Amino acid sequence: MATHQSNGHGAATAAENGKSNGHVAAAHRSNGHSNGKSNGHVAEVDWKFARAKDGVLATTGDKMSIRAIRYKISASVEEHGPRPVLPLAHGDPSVFPAFRTAVEAEDAVAAALRTGQLNCYPAGVGLPAARSAVAEHLSKDIPYELSADDIFLTAGGTQAIEVVIPVLAQQPGANILLPRPGYPNYEARAGFNKLEVRHFDLLPEKGWEIDIDSLESIADRNTAAMVIINPNNPCGSVYSYEHLAKVAAVARKLGILVIADEVYGKLVLGSAPFIPMGVFGHIAPVLSIGSLSKSWIVPGWRLGWVAVYDPTKILQETKIATSITNYLNVSTDPATFIQGALPQILENTKGDFFKRIIGLLKESSEICYRNIKENKYISCPHKPEGSMFVMVKLNLRLLEDIQDDVDFCCKLAKEESVILCLGSVLGMENWVRITFAIVPSSLKDGLERIKYFCQRNKNKPINGC
Amino acid sequence: MATHQSNGHGAATAAENGKSNGHVAAAHRSNGHSNGKSNGHVAEVDWKFARAKDGVLATTGDKMSIRAIRYKISASVEEHGPRPVLPLAHGDPSVFPAFRTAVEAEDAVAAALRTGQLNCYPAGVGLPAARSAVAEHLSKDIPYELSADDIFLTAGGTQAIEVVIPVLAQQPGANILLPRPGYPNYEARAGFNKLEVRHFDLLPEKGWEIDIDSLESIADRNTAAMVIINPNNPCGSVYSYEHLAKVAAVARKLGILVIADEVYGKLVLGSAPFIPMGVFGHIAPVLSIGSLSKSWIVPGWRLGWVAVYDPTKILQETKIATSITNYLNVSTDPATFIQGALPQILENTKGDFFKRIIGLLKESSEICYRNIKENKYISCPHKPEGSMFVMVKLNLRLLEDIQDDVDFCCKLAKEESVILCLGSVLGMENWVRITFAIVPSSLKDGLERIKYFCQRNKNKPINGC
Repeated sequence: MATHQSNGHGAATAAENGKSNGHVAAAHRSNGHSNGKSNGHVAEVDWKFARAKDGVLATTGDKMSIRAIRYKISASVEEHGPRPVLPLAHGDPSVFPAFRTAVEAEDAVAAALRTGQLNCYPAGVGLPAARSAVAEHLSKDIPYELSADDIFLTAGGTQAIEVVIPVLAQQPGANILLPRPGYPNYEARAGFNKLEVRHFDLLPEKGWEIDIDSLESIADRNTAAMVIINPNNPCGSVYSYEHLAKVAAVARKLGILVIADEVYGKLVLGSAPFIPMGVFGHIAPVLSIGSLSKSWIVPGWRLGWVAVYDPTKILQETKIATSITNYLNVSTDPATFIQGALPQILENTKGDFFKRIIGLLKESSEICYRNIKENKYISCPHKPEGSMFVMVKLNLRLLEDIQDDVDFCCKLAKEESVILCLGSVLGMENWVRITFAIVPSSLKDGLERIKYFCQRNKNKPINGC
Repeated sequence: MATHQSNGHGAATAAENGKSNGHVAAAHRSNGHSNGKSNGHVAEVDWKFARAKDGVLATTGDKMSIRAIRYKISASVEEHGPRPVLPLAHGDPSVFPAFRTAVEAEDAVAAALRTGQLNCYPAGVGLPAARSAVAEHLSKDIPYELSADDIFLTAGGTQAIEVVIPVLAQQPGANILLPRPGYPNYEARAGFNKLEVRHFDLLPEKGWEIDIDSLESIADRNTAAMVIINPNNPCGSVYSYEHLAKVAAVARKLGILVIADEVYGKLVLGSAPFIPMGVFGHIAPVLSIGSLSKSWIVPGWRLGWVAVYDPTKILQETKIATSITNYLNVSTDPATFIQGALPQILENTKGDFFKRIIGLLKESSEICYRNIKENKYISCPHKPEGSMFVMVKLNLRLLEDIQDDVDFCCKLAKEESVILCLGSVLGMENWVRITFAIVPSSLKDGLERIKYFCQRNKNKPINGC
């Protein structure tokens, strides 16, 4: 590589010089000198940035992260174990051929790449054609029309959370109401942005509906917004029209906006339809988070959006939309050619694809629910109706020497090579989240291993009793 | 689309219900009622999030953004003007066929997409194989080896800045030293993260070298880091080995880390080689920001990295690396299949590609410099040696009724359809940044239009003199 050689060579020369250069040679010596006692080395220079090690990212950052916890659990797995590791912790079946994304979507991305015209920087809030396509797509399901200006493209639902939280945190002393159990990226981002978090419960005995009555008691004049996740992660519930109407009414009464995390919007398994929160945009303004990740089984494409459902222009008047634009202008973007493919992806993906994916998820959700019902050591209060997950309670009193959900998941990973998601990282100790977004054979295998694990670890009967 | 119909239909039904439903009907009325007087509507409900409209994002966010300023300048262009708009503001020549990326790179991304195995979520800090490939690539130019653990993949250089700034901001009362002129995303992100900014000057009379002597006077015990951009954006300078050695020495003396923004690392036009700051990692620890965006002419692919040059393990001991990991675990990622293509991109891209790109940039940089020299109304103190830019001073005393760089750029956009970058957004009023990363014909056309504009707006001679 001529140029690289000219760089590489030049730098190599520099490095050579470096090696015989006073500074670097000295540095080499000091490095050598400090081997094995690098604390001594740190003391040698008063590194001013060292105090960052007491910061929240350095000390508690990993506890905020569902990913970090998952990696920790996975680390308990016996390497070179006899059986495959079964990932029942996170919702990403994309590597299974049965869950491969729609050919129309893959073709659209490949074609956009091959134009060579979409290697450029995108506009800060997304390509106009892609924003229009999302607006049209979402407008089908609400009683009014969204325009391209109502759509902000983000690098997955993850970046949508990164954007929405600091926008609300602008209000001094603001707080946000988050569901418990929930999705910890909201708590993490709120922490980074000094936005106070207050939790409301989802009620297992009521099909994981929101404890609406509790909202007024935890909200105050500094409450800016509430988050609802529908279809729900981690509970697998799908909210009814009537329930969402109650959410809108209380949001209006409290004067807060609703952040509706609807990334599982297409993944509804039962007869109850998915109702976009935007249907109630006239009652309380809504910022909806959506993405291709779950519905098209392409979380790695990192394409999502924030949709502004604001028919009464409240979010425009209060500059929430302006703040989103300003934040995105100094943030990263979804890849331009994937944005460029979005109109074709939304328009060309055939219903058969979604029918197939829903069919697979419906089958596996039933296997999951049935199998859990047959395992007395765990229990599931509500049959999943959507998303990719179900929340499962551990009946610890029936289990010997299992302290809590962390202990359960680590031992399960070590002994059975099955990875589950801790309930405690989602806000509910001694529960676990299990995904059914995996091929039936692997799901059955995983649930069987969980059963064996529980039976092996059941309380021993007391002698003679 | 069966599923979408089942959702769409259900939701449509809901929407229908909605239209005849008490809540939504009421909302419709209240909307109708508030038409044209929506302030009245806002007053009707005490929207608690309204106070966010006084926040920094809402009020000053657009001033922090080089993108937002560019959009404003572009808005001055006469629509349907007779001539094409010439974008000389930002460094993105990717849409010109001559600057199309390497076929090996495009093929690698297409192949990764077509495997169907890289639609999944990546690991929070990047795919191991991609991290290894970057480590190997960067190790060629330094006197020690980087490992995969030293590389954190980011969604372009933009996300690398998003990550590095909050990590440093963990230290209470910390400040960071930034170059003037510089790249405003650093100031913007520091502002979001309450990290105090102190500026040091780049010296035009010294080939835009850093005013090293000033660093000690502006730093204090709370100074965590300094940023250097090499090859330099916006000045087009390339720092010598000796100059970088001085930077390392003063950083060590001050006990600060060096953030080396090296996204233009391969784009060196002169005989002086690019020296990675990591060469001096033994003297002061370095976080280097790199990306494919500029060297491969694919800013829209959004693939970059933070490389940790820390041979004495100071950043490990002070948990800077841990903090980066924790931040990335709750942040978005580069698209997985583009990460998957990275090893092939780095290994297979032929030297001829870089030779061609460098050749194009060298030719256009010389056209740019020569043409500016021939225009007495603007001046360029230093011939560009790298990156895609040159800083140009406006000789306002020779121009009639041009107040400042904002006035110059807006009038130029309106009258000549040429877009330049304001110097004031980069920290230097009454300068402009011009990119030469564009085909020669367009560059010449743009510089000619600038000349005509200046001549049209020159000071009128006083009568009889």
